[in-house]
Amino acid sequence: MNRTPDRPGPIRAVLFDVGGTLVHEASPGRAVTDLVARTRDGAVADLETLAHTYRLGAVTDTAVMGEEQVRRLLAPSGLDALLEVVVTSADVGVAKPDPRSLRCAMARLGLDPATVLYVGDRDLDAAAAAAAGAAFAPVGDGSPGRAVIRWLRANEGAFAAARALLGVPDRTAEEDARHLHDRLTKPPRSLGDLETLGARLAGIAGRAPPPLPFPAAVAVFAGDHGVVASGVTPWPQAVTAQMVVNFSRGGAAVNVLARAAGASVTVVDVGVAGPVPPAPGLIDRRVRPGTANLADGPAMTVDDARAAMDVGAEVAADLVAGGARALVTGDMGIGNTTPAAALVAAFTGLPAWRVTGRGTGIDDATLAIKIAVIDRALARGRPDEGPIEVAARLGGLEHAALCGFVVGGAAARVPVLIDGVIALSAVLTAAALAPRVVPFCIAGHRSTEPGADAALAHLGLTPLLQLRMRLGEGSGACLALPLVRAAALVLREMATFDEAGIGR
Amino acid sequence: MNRTPDRPGPIRAVLFDVGGTLVHEASPGRAVTDLVARTRDGAVADLETLAHTYRLGAVTDTAVMGEEQVRRLLAPSGLDALLEVVVTSADVGVAKPDPRSLRCAMARLGLDPATVLYVGDRDLDAAAAAAAGAAFAPVGDGSPGRAVIRWLRANEGAFAAARALLGVPDRTAEEDARHLHDRLTKPPRSLGDLETLGARLAGIAGRAPPPLPFPAAVAVFAGDHGVVASGVTPWPQAVTAQMVVNFSRGGAAVNVLARAAGASVTVVDVGVAGPVPPAPGLIDRRVRPGTANLADGPAMTVDDARAAMDVGAEVAADLVAGGARALVTGDMGIGNTTPAAALVAAFTGLPAWRVTGRGTGIDDATLAIKIAVIDRALARGRPDEGPIEVAARLGGLEHAALCGFVVGGAAARVPVLIDGVIALSAVLTAAALAPRVVPFCIAGHRSTEPGADAALAHLGLTPLLQLRMRLGEGSGACLALPLVRAAALVLREMATFDEAGIGR
Repeated sequence: MNRTPDRPGPIRAVLFDVGGTLVHEASPGRAVTDLVARTRDGAVADLETLAHTYRLGAVTDTAVMGEEQVRRLLAPSGLDALLEVVVTSADVGVAKPDPRSLRCAMARLGLDPATVLYVGDRDLDAAAAAAAGAAFAPVGDGSPGRAVIRWLRANEGAFAAARALLGVPDRTAEEDARHLHDRLTKPPRSLGDLETLGARLAGIAGRAPPPLPFPAAVAVFAGDHGVVASGVTPWPQAVTAQMVVNFSRGGAAVNVLARAAGASVTVVDVGVAGPVPPAPGLIDRRVRPGTANLADGPAMTVDDARAAMDVGAEVAADLVAGGARALVTGDMGIGNTTPAAALVAAFTGLPAWRVTGRGTGIDDATLAIKIAVIDRALARGRPDEGPIEVAARLGGLEHAALCGFVVGGAAARVPVLIDGVIALSAVLTAAALAPRVVPFCIAGHRSTEPGADAALAHLGLTPLLQLRMRLGEGSGACLALPLVRAAALVLREMATFDEAGIGR
Repeated sequence: MNRTPDRPGPIRAVLFDVGGTLVHEASPGRAVTDLVARTRDGAVADLETLAHTYRLGAVTDTAVMGEEQVRRLLAPSGLDALLEVVVTSADVGVAKPDPRSLRCAMARLGLDPATVLYVGDRDLDAAAAAAAGAAFAPVGDGSPGRAVIRWLRANEGAFAAARALLGVPDRTAEEDARHLHDRLTKPPRSLGDLETLGARLAGIAGRAPPPLPFPAAVAVFAGDHGVVASGVTPWPQAVTAQMVVNFSRGGAAVNVLARAAGASVTVVDVGVAGPVPPAPGLIDRRVRPGTANLADGPAMTVDDARAAMDVGAEVAADLVAGGARALVTGDMGIGNTTPAAALVAAFTGLPAWRVTGRGTGIDDATLAIKIAVIDRALARGRPDEGPIEVAARLGGLEHAALCGFVVGGAAARVPVLIDGVIALSAVLTAAALAPRVVPFCIAGHRSTEPGADAALAHLGLTPLLQLRMRLGEGSGACLALPLVRAAALVLREMATFDEAGIGR
């Protein structure tokens, strides 16, 4: 299997059947010269989105048309431009569905069949894929993109599916929001960053004024870290599990701040080391009981990292399905600023001493140990490593889960509020895997950890708040939620000059 | 009348009768050597507060004790230390209440009778005050301080009364809040500025954890400015009245942002130039229809400024009486950044060009006019001017009202959230009249106006937010309200390490 390091799963290209898959089936008796391609709902938007992650092509069973005619039919909808290869059965000299067309398309792309997914509407398409050695997804009643996502979720996990769904902000909606701002009863641009934020929310949601980013949902991913054995923190590892209990009882800072902002809190055990009693609002999705010590070797396997990313993406999808209209990153894990600093160093290229801070408040000697440990871990990097390998070698289970969570939220087109340095190290990982995730991220608070500044600069994000906090848990992002809500409310509720009868 | 420029009214000293006023009346037959002074409820705290604003003394009718004996009786309660003069009828050789004791006390203070208020419990005390030419306030059933405040409110206005009530933050409550923070389930001081804010709220309210600063009330004071005739703004003056209507309809930014924070909005016409139709939530307390042009002479009379300060103090007292537990400053007035910059220059000593900005967005030529106008107005200052004279010469009606509002809120011991440069210029005025107002002020947002920075530095305040806003209205302070609320909630709702069973 030709697994590339920067991909969650093996699939690199998606090939689509045309009639009944990308376009509606033509009436049987229709002359070729009379054909008009009626695109299936969502097909163009789906392929535009998928094209950011996958190579795309069409493989169609027609004895009467070659590539050029099919492309001409698909050109008006924009589908033609999205297809790297188009192969018809006529092109390869066969009269009915046959693996040869598929094999020809794969050869033209230079890809192994194990890296190709074929999407079609008929059993014959499935049989052709099986014969050619490619995966197959039935298009069903929905759009062709939905079929791909469904297949990815079942076969490559929630992270791969979310990544395939990632779109870009809607520039028209952003522009509309800016124009609306200029008509509201205030001097133009006098609401400063709140106006910029409002336009971003419009772009994320694809409409102006934007919907309220409410209710919001915080997910606190908890994990433990083998690196605590190296003496990077004075806190005992047992505190992670104790704090998970505190979260589920509502007594931690993030509970108080989320309640104040009207946000729910979901706690996800993605890798706590010790036993955690079941509790309401606590989800047991433990991938492994803590990481290995990154000072001595990889913190976890690549499969562990993938699994944690899938947990994060699933939690994001579930929260949005449950009604959340904004997501907030939260984290808990004694020792977790060490893997965060290591990830920041790896993804920004900065030296460990520049991005490593005192976390919850360590002394000079402990800081020196922390930097040395990170330096050792960084030195084990290989030039051909992909982002998931980096995340496995240096990161934590909550960091990987947060990477998936951020991508999941962006794929669902809700704003994702980013807390401090743990979440930022996860966004760096996510951005390395899928750069389009960044415009969906809103930095909540500028942590005092130096790695936070480095990550923010690398990502081009500016936090809404700067209150010298360094707690994590999602506390800083929760505090920013009312600002995000206010940015949407201004666009939704302020009177325009015309409405108020005010002349300028 | 010996009116000093830095005082809202003429009273400079308060003299108190002792038995029945500061302490409970002794039983008639009691021997002098057996006497124990039982202080009346609130008397010590009242005099401690009043001592910041007034010179204090005691004048008592006793034939059997001289100053030294009275002071010895009052020493255990702390009252003795608060009294600059103590005069008994025995000291001056009279056998019953007589103006001579009062005259003696006034002579020792070197004060004219018209600047002295006497507080007593008997008609004889009132008669003595009348004969001596001093004002008289009956102590009644409440504390002696309440009697002074009542008299001040009736005779010198709400501002003088509020100013006399101004206390200092409770250092014990602040310290208790800091200790509580260290026991909460988070690394010590990891909530940064939110912890500092929580301790301040405890000090303001006098208890830890502090009460919720909720509900909050925004007061938007609206006024017009003669200086617009000098061409300092491109906006027509009529917009002030139009925006007042917009506020009362709920369509302005401050309405949206206050609603989002659960705060009420009260609009106070303290000096709009044109007609404003009555509307719900709009209070007509117009002192005059706009100021005169400060470029050519005083913007208003000292009496106008006093009247506007009284309006502000009354609105603050009314809102707190109506249940508000935090106040938010709001303002509206086309051209009002010009008087604000002039006030900032006058109170900080900085040159006009350093503190004058582009307001709602003026061009270079208009900015030059604005600076020149302020320079001319500043040049008319006299060295012996008091803060109220400065406020009258340079300020606006909403600026003066906001000065009263801030003092009123501080006197009621609620946090006062300060918006941008208009409110800050009012706080500078208030701090010049009553420095103890400052610790009750919480700066909401760092306006882009340069005068805001200068005022913040002068006052030693750091804003919670910095979002490049420059709208005014109270918009920036409303956005900070959730942070203030969160600071109190953390102290009220977070679990301690002991409660959560977490060992450190």
